Amino acid sequence: MKKTNAFSCSLAELAARLGATLVGDGERRVSGLATLSDAGPEDLSFLANRAYLKYLPDTRAAAVLIHPAHVAECPATRLELDNPYLAYAELSRLFDPLAARPVAGIHPAASVADGVTLGQRVEVGAHAVIESGAELGDDVIVGPGSVVGADSSIGAGSRLHANVTVYHGVIVGKRAILHSGCVIGADGFGFAHDGAGWHKIAQLGGVVLGDDVEVGSCSSIDRGALGDTVIGDDVKIDSQVQIAHNVCIGDHTALAGCVGIAGSTKVGRHCMLGGGVGLAGHLTICDGVQVTGMSLVTNSITKPGVYSSGTGAMSNALWRKNAVRFKQLDDLAKRLTRLERSSRDT
Amino acid sequence: MKKTNAFSCSLAELAARLGATLVGDGERRVSGLATLSDAGPEDLSFLANRAYLKYLPDTRAAAVLIHPAHVAECPATRLELDNPYLAYAELSRLFDPLAARPVAGIHPAASVADGVTLGQRVEVGAHAVIESGAELGDDVIVGPGSVVGADSSIGAGSRLHANVTVYHGVIVGKRAILHSGCVIGADGFGFAHDGAGWHKIAQLGGVVLGDDVEVGSCSSIDRGALGDTVIGDDVKIDSQVQIAHNVCIGDHTALAGCVGIAGSTKVGRHCMLGGGVGLAGHLTICDGVQVTGMSLVTNSITKPGVYSSGTGAMSNALWRKNAVRFKQLDDLAKRLTRLERSSRDT
Amino acid sequence: MKKTNAFSCSLAELAARLGATLVGDGERRVSGLATLSDAGPEDLSFLANRAYLKYLPDTRAAAVLIHPAHVAECPATRLELDNPYLAYAELSRLFDPLAARPVAGIHPAASVADGVTLGQRVEVGAHAVIESGAELGDDVIVGPGSVVGADSSIGAGSRLHANVTVYHGVIVGKRAILHSGCVIGADGFGFAHDGAGWHKIAQLGGVVLGDDVEVGSCSSIDRGALGDTVIGDDVKIDSQVQIAHNVCIGDHTALAGCVGIAGSTKVGRHCMLGGGVGLAGHLTICDGVQVTGMSLVTNSITKPGVYSSGTGAMSNALWRKNAVRFKQLDDLAKRLTRLERSSRDT
Repeated sequence: MKKTNAFSCSLAELAARLGATLVGDGERRVSGLATLSDAGPEDLSFLANRAYLKYLPDTRAAAVLIHPAHVAECPATRLELDNPYLAYAELSRLFDPLAARPVAGIHPAASVADGVTLGQRVEVGAHAVIESGAELGDDVIVGPGSVVGADSSIGAGSRLHANVTVYHGVIVGKRAILHSGCVIGADGFGFAHDGAGWHKIAQLGGVVLGDDVEVGSCSSIDRGALGDTVIGDDVKIDSQVQIAHNVCIGDHTALAGCVGIAGSTKVGRHCMLGGGVGLAGHLTICDGVQVTGMSLVTNSITKPGVYSSGTGAMSNALWRKNAVRFKQLDDLAKRLTRLERSSRDT
Repeated sequence: MKKTNAFSCSLAELAARLGATLVGDGERRVSGLATLSDAGPEDLSFLANRAYLKYLPDTRAAAVLIHPAHVAECPATRLELDNPYLAYAELSRLFDPLAARPVAGIHPAASVADGVTLGQRVEVGAHAVIESGAELGDDVIVGPGSVVGADSSIGAGSRLHANVTVYHGVIVGKRAILHSGCVIGADGFGFAHDGAGWHKIAQLGGVVLGDDVEVGSCSSIDRGALGDTVIGDDVKIDSQVQIAHNVCIGDHTALAGCVGIAGSTKVGRHCMLGGGVGLAGHLTICDGVQVTGMSLVTNSITKPGVYSSGTGAMSNALWRKNAVRFKQLDDLAKRLTRLERSSRDT
Repeated sequence: MKKTNAFSCSLAELAARLGATLVGDGERRVSGLATLSDAGPEDLSFLANRAYLKYLPDTRAAAVLIHPAHVAECPATRLELDNPYLAYAELSRLFDPLAARPVAGIHPAASVADGVTLGQRVEVGAHAVIESGAELGDDVIVGPGSVVGADSSIGAGSRLHANVTVYHGVIVGKRAILHSGCVIGADGFGFAHDGAGWHKIAQLGGVVLGDDVEVGSCSSIDRGALGDTVIGDDVKIDSQVQIAHNVCIGDHTALAGCVGIAGSTKVGRHCMLGGGVGLAGHLTICDGVQVTGMSLVTNSITKPGVYSSGTGAMSNALWRKNAVRFKQLDDLAKRLTRLERSSRDT
């Protein structure tokens, strides 16, 4: 991406902000962030993963955020601190061109209904729609083409990017970031069968998002059937995720891309679900659970730890043979047991 | 969600509407629906699943929809009937605040092209676009930001929520519900390879949705390459579903979230695909098939029943050992056979 | 779909265009394309797959695109050539009603900011938004409701269908086709943990799409954390695909529906990923790799070929027994080894 951001800062100022120990020229200024291998002489870089130690000797970065344990190998000016990755996260927001934009106010082509409550410094983009009874807190940004449904509220400091949809009766906490194409509050998937076909169950609950929630592009969080679907504080949700009706997600939990969670399942606090993980409905997952990518969970989990299912990829030729054997696995196990018995008998 | 719905009804009226046997005070009024454990004294509740019997003795509900077999344990006023879940579905629609909204007509900020045919009581939201040649039947609602492409038709009583996209030449039946972010009629994934790269195959077919179809948020139904992609009557499709070109889905079939169906596959009537199920292309799945969550189906299915694939989750430590063995499975099976032979020979 | 396309052509003209050998009446005109079984007397058809040979004797098609090896069985007028499927692809675009539409220019209800650069014959639909600093090349079409973010550029001949979102600082090459609901340039999923909760990492990179890229409906391509996410030339991406930050995809690679690729993974040229395939992060997949549907890849692949994981579907009753045994697989293997040893010892 071409750089449009004119922000720059001296290393001394950055060290003070981060509480880092500066070793080198504090007057030197940096105007960008980059990886060790990509950084130029005006960029700040960081070492957060031992795998990248090999790029350290040759980096052209003006300075490096680094843990004291690795300074021996650092040729550049350095800012020493305990958690360089966290420091990088903090600084990244300084260099974000979006953060520096002036507030644009209500675009003349936006549609804001009567009976909407607007906080201070609210921005509503072109062709966005705010329906009757909605509330937008201070500093809320609603991107172009986004829709906030009737009687919904968006907490202070939240940003809806372009083409986000929030249905009626949804509560979004403070400082939320909702990415384009995500949909909050569509009907849960509820139907009763009469023996011949389906009868829709109106989804009368809502969705409540806590504070500091991020939702990725094209993700869905459905409204509850009777009670609400509830997403805790500081929950981070990647793109292409599906969260069904009446799911509850505990604080600080992170869901990677393509995760699907079926109805009424409760996920604890500080959990991490890898990409493509599926949780069946009506489960309870305790705090501190990690599930590796593309695993299927069909039973509740009561003990923190790492869980997995599935099989890793191999050549198709080998896989075909093994996959056939999987269908015989119970039979193979029984044959093994018989053989053990007959071996013991002889 | 805060309740904005002022609807209330006497138990006697509800019993009459449902054909239920009322035991208790028919004059009592209810103004909401809730689960047994959440219900307050103005709510109606229901018992549809034996797992919730434990909540029955302490419910505060004004009355409970219940099967005659369970009345002994019911402390509250009750409406006895054979299918309490179906009765709950019927009543849920009475309590839906969306159902009570007045029709808003064509919003002044909507773009309705010349040459569009509009039925009676049609509503088109702000910044929605209806392209030339499109037809909207009676009582159709097109939400804000939705687009109905040229020459498409939307059957009477259908609702497109906000930010839905219907391409050109798509036929949607009566009483459809299309949720936000869903896309009906984008190009199927068709390319011819010339040995060096890809050549696009224009997707000349359309999409036909039957009556009473529901499509969840952010789901895709692609248009056919030559003929149409066809979705039968009363087909219910959850969020994040992908239906490729020239797929046919039989009447009354339900697809849970994140299902993917590859091109030209035919799914029968009264099927149920669990969350994340994948069907390969060019298959035929007969009527009455259920597939459990995240299963992969690569062959046609000719017999009704329940089908599955995959492995359940376990601790990562145990999984690592077993997943390695899966790659040796054919070898293990051969060794077992050899051992059986040598055991028989001795 | 009802045919709205009045295009027709003589078989002699088509043969000349394709370099095919015409056997039959060159004056005959065709006005549509259809499969062998659906074709009527005004349609052209093709035989590209031996599985459809059975439909050849009874086809009503005016003429058939066919390989010389199969002409003996062809009752109709024929156009003989080496790659009938490629010829069908070329002709399909002639019969596409979208291709024949006149350019509509800038819709009066579009919002085009000051400081936008527009090429020749650009079309911008109703309620579309082009933000400041964006560039649209010649013949670009931006569908209704689509948003092109600040400082992004869309190459000549590209089409964004309705309700597409392109964030700021994204570069789209020439002749791209972006389908409705897709989102290019949303934030990658990057957070640093401080032991208590998450800190957002601003995603400062962009997205670069090469020439001739197609992206399906509701797919996500996230912007890079520092450098860019890079999609090569002639890459074809189906619907519901998730491409995470800093992924690189080589030229001519095709990704089927519901694929998910985690951060910083590099996929080679001429690869094909089947539906629902998941690639873990930080992998390198070499050129010429195919991965079959719903496989999980957690290690880099250095050799071209076909790769798979998972297990095929079977009856649920059989699957339950085998899935239980999968959890015992390492144990079974050890028991087998013990038995082999004791058998050798006796």
